[in-house]
Amino acid sequence: MSKNLTKRETDYSKWYNELVVKADLAENSGVRGCMVIKPYGFAIWEKMQAQLDKMFKETGHENAYFPLFIPKSYLSKEADHVKGFAKECAVVTHYRLKNAEDGSGVVVDPEAKLEEELIVRPTSETIIWDTYRKWIESYRDLPLLINQWANVVRWEMRTRLFLRTAEFLWQEGHTAHATEKEAIQEAELILDIYGDFAEKFMAMPVIKGLKTASERFAGAIETYCIEGLMQDGKALQAGTSHFLGQNFAKAFDVQFTSKEGKREHVWATSWGVSTRLMGALIMTHSDDLGLVLPPNLAPIQVVIIPIHRNDEQLDAISEKINQIVKELRSKNISVKFDNRTTHKPGWKFAEYELKGVPLRIAMGPRDLENGTLEIARRDTLEKQSISQENVVDFVEKTLKEIQENLFTKAYNYRESHIIEVETFEEFKHILNTKGGFVSAHWDGTAETEDKIKELTKATIRCIPLNNKIEEGKCVLTGKKSTQRVLFAKAY
Amino acid sequence: MSKNLTKRETDYSKWYNELVVKADLAENSGVRGCMVIKPYGFAIWEKMQAQLDKMFKETGHENAYFPLFIPKSYLSKEADHVKGFAKECAVVTHYRLKNAEDGSGVVVDPEAKLEEELIVRPTSETIIWDTYRKWIESYRDLPLLINQWANVVRWEMRTRLFLRTAEFLWQEGHTAHATEKEAIQEAELILDIYGDFAEKFMAMPVIKGLKTASERFAGAIETYCIEGLMQDGKALQAGTSHFLGQNFAKAFDVQFTSKEGKREHVWATSWGVSTRLMGALIMTHSDDLGLVLPPNLAPIQVVIIPIHRNDEQLDAISEKINQIVKELRSKNISVKFDNRTTHKPGWKFAEYELKGVPLRIAMGPRDLENGTLEIARRDTLEKQSISQENVVDFVEKTLKEIQENLFTKAYNYRESHIIEVETFEEFKHILNTKGGFVSAHWDGTAETEDKIKELTKATIRCIPLNNKIEEGKCVLTGKKSTQRVLFAKAY
Repeated sequence: MSKNLTKRETDYSKWYNELVVKADLAENSGVRGCMVIKPYGFAIWEKMQAQLDKMFKETGHENAYFPLFIPKSYLSKEADHVKGFAKECAVVTHYRLKNAEDGSGVVVDPEAKLEEELIVRPTSETIIWDTYRKWIESYRDLPLLINQWANVVRWEMRTRLFLRTAEFLWQEGHTAHATEKEAIQEAELILDIYGDFAEKFMAMPVIKGLKTASERFAGAIETYCIEGLMQDGKALQAGTSHFLGQNFAKAFDVQFTSKEGKREHVWATSWGVSTRLMGALIMTHSDDLGLVLPPNLAPIQVVIIPIHRNDEQLDAISEKINQIVKELRSKNISVKFDNRTTHKPGWKFAEYELKGVPLRIAMGPRDLENGTLEIARRDTLEKQSISQENVVDFVEKTLKEIQENLFTKAYNYRESHIIEVETFEEFKHILNTKGGFVSAHWDGTAETEDKIKELTKATIRCIPLNNKIEEGKCVLTGKKSTQRVLFAKAY
Repeated sequence: MSKNLTKRETDYSKWYNELVVKADLAENSGVRGCMVIKPYGFAIWEKMQAQLDKMFKETGHENAYFPLFIPKSYLSKEADHVKGFAKECAVVTHYRLKNAEDGSGVVVDPEAKLEEELIVRPTSETIIWDTYRKWIESYRDLPLLINQWANVVRWEMRTRLFLRTAEFLWQEGHTAHATEKEAIQEAELILDIYGDFAEKFMAMPVIKGLKTASERFAGAIETYCIEGLMQDGKALQAGTSHFLGQNFAKAFDVQFTSKEGKREHVWATSWGVSTRLMGALIMTHSDDLGLVLPPNLAPIQVVIIPIHRNDEQLDAISEKINQIVKELRSKNISVKFDNRTTHKPGWKFAEYELKGVPLRIAMGPRDLENGTLEIARRDTLEKQSISQENVVDFVEKTLKEIQENLFTKAYNYRESHIIEVETFEEFKHILNTKGGFVSAHWDGTAETEDKIKELTKATIRCIPLNNKIEEGKCVLTGKKSTQRVLFAKAY
């Protein structure tokens, strides 16, 4: 398979699909809409998981595990919730196969039909709140701060690797609180964690905001979100944190005895990020040569490639490289020494470029003589020769620089792609030429929101949390408005 | 809920069920056969995962993720495999619900029937080997050493928390090799990893052996296993590693070009351990007061409980305890300081005994005066007063001792429960009185194995790997035999 990717300018979507497969991140499986996450892609996901898990635990959350299956009757208990998920769910109806009577193989055994169908969880609010009823008695049991890492299934018709798949991996937090205020604080705390993770680890700037009613999670009172901007000018929702009010507590009758001895319904939040973040990561930084990974999430931060004509040279170079590997590892830097003789250096250079390894070191016979090595940055493609003695300091410093540079670059791109408009003509013009976020006044009605979506394919990505209040007129209807919202075409 | 458990002697099975729930490890959910793993139980599972994952990675394995669903036709491709799993699998037949016409809620939408049914994975050989066909071209792509952490579903009719549940969590390794020899070496390497993990982390002695043909994994040529012995004299299969020969490579047409340029089928292994290990851990060490955890897997290794009559005393004691907590944590010891005033010290003592925390430290006003503290071991229930100055050394040393003591105790129990018998009368007598492993000659036929199972409920747990060859006569038929095998009643 050729390593050459379609150029982003030519066909961004094709570039993305090729990159995901060629960089060994993921591929489609034989099961419609379900992906295989390949080892290299999974290693990045593991780094994301480890960091998020740490952040959740540092803020008092614990992990647990709830069933994959949700009885149909549970899903139905919260009216908005079932409306949101019933149309795209995998339904288990039988629990056994048997040999076909005509000998043609195995078939579903009609006698093994379930009394009640089971839904493969699209999200776990219902099964979890059914459990919380047993766990929560009094205010002493609150807050209950639980997270689960799991697979979920939503039967999407049009799927794309990482961005929209029938099965995906995610974490889902589900918390229970004694007061409305505490639940809202929790939803906001998690939004901050998601924002910090996106910006400090993924090097992806995000806008924090609230969703409009029509974009809210099915069953939520308020949905907070972080929104990123991809290189093609389309927005991507990277994480959501929901204030659920007492909706699920009421649907599943979860009450607690307050300090004052009163029985009250519990307040709830839920929140999640998924393997979709992999798509966001790819589309924030990568280029026509392949993946570009921020050092904080790169499974391999430094690759070292020997350049040699014969075994004798390789031995001498390897000895020096092994020393460097050891020194770098002692600083917790993840290093790969690729000493395979089955592949040429040029092939390896292209391979690690494609895979987004932040730093590449090459060492040849002349370097050995001179005490130097060549080091190349994946983000800027700059190469330079440095002294072997300085390698550890240089690598440490440069990894930090790359992390910052990727963020700054993405931040500047994002900032230059938030355009305030006053008229619907401007709105359409910006959307169809430059893309990005269009900041516009909106009259606050779902009708206008729908109409704009119908006319332009843009949706309201969020009402930014730090919005300033200003007088204005709705970009479509001209009605009064007090703040701008961010529109964009989105993944 | 009372903390008192049924005594093991009275009803071992009831003791187990109560302990799992009361120690906050797991509980049954509203979904038949599916459990909820509670935060405390999940924290132990996370420690198991982290250690196993480290051991897999150190031996060159990488993690990946494959789809939850397996098309029915895939499952059918390997004849023995489908025979083994078809009778107990969850089948997805539809992908949508809709509102019932009579307004009675949501029902399965008959128009959303899948063309081909999907099986919720009971194990992933078929979907993985379908993928490996695309990944393996030449000997350069081998070995392929992949593991996945996942949930699987087997529709068991009689379920028990951790030991046998419809859904469970596990890891499944799937490797591909160029030669038969390498594949067998891999299966044996993994068996060693499982054995080391069981003995060094779970403090559970295990016997390594081979399964007989009738106990083999469906589709395997050879199944290696580790078998533990529970306190009630029943054996428990704690992990299996399968040499699959070329069965799956042939079923899914996975061939590679050898160094010599020949096309050959790939050799395979698969291997797994599951949340069943939690059951094994509980039944190896725990007692009538509750859980007993080996320090290497305990989420909380040391709990510290202040004893005080008023706030002033609590403040003074807390100041000292906070110092100790800090010192212990700097040595990577996991400590909990339970300073809740909502619960009395006596309640806390019982609580952490029930939860198996290896060491409990109590500190009261007199300790504060004298510079002492009281420290209690969960394994021996011994208490002693030590000087505060020695606490870090004492804790470090004692945690090691507890780990060793638990292993030794379980080892001695196991060793005294491997009984060689020569006659079938002895066989039955030992099995029905003492329990444990009965070491007996067997004529090597499935008929005899079945007959013995029918007569005694004992199965051949394994043919130990380190077996000595000796002349003997089958305990049932009197036919010639060259080695003993281990029989036991089993979980």
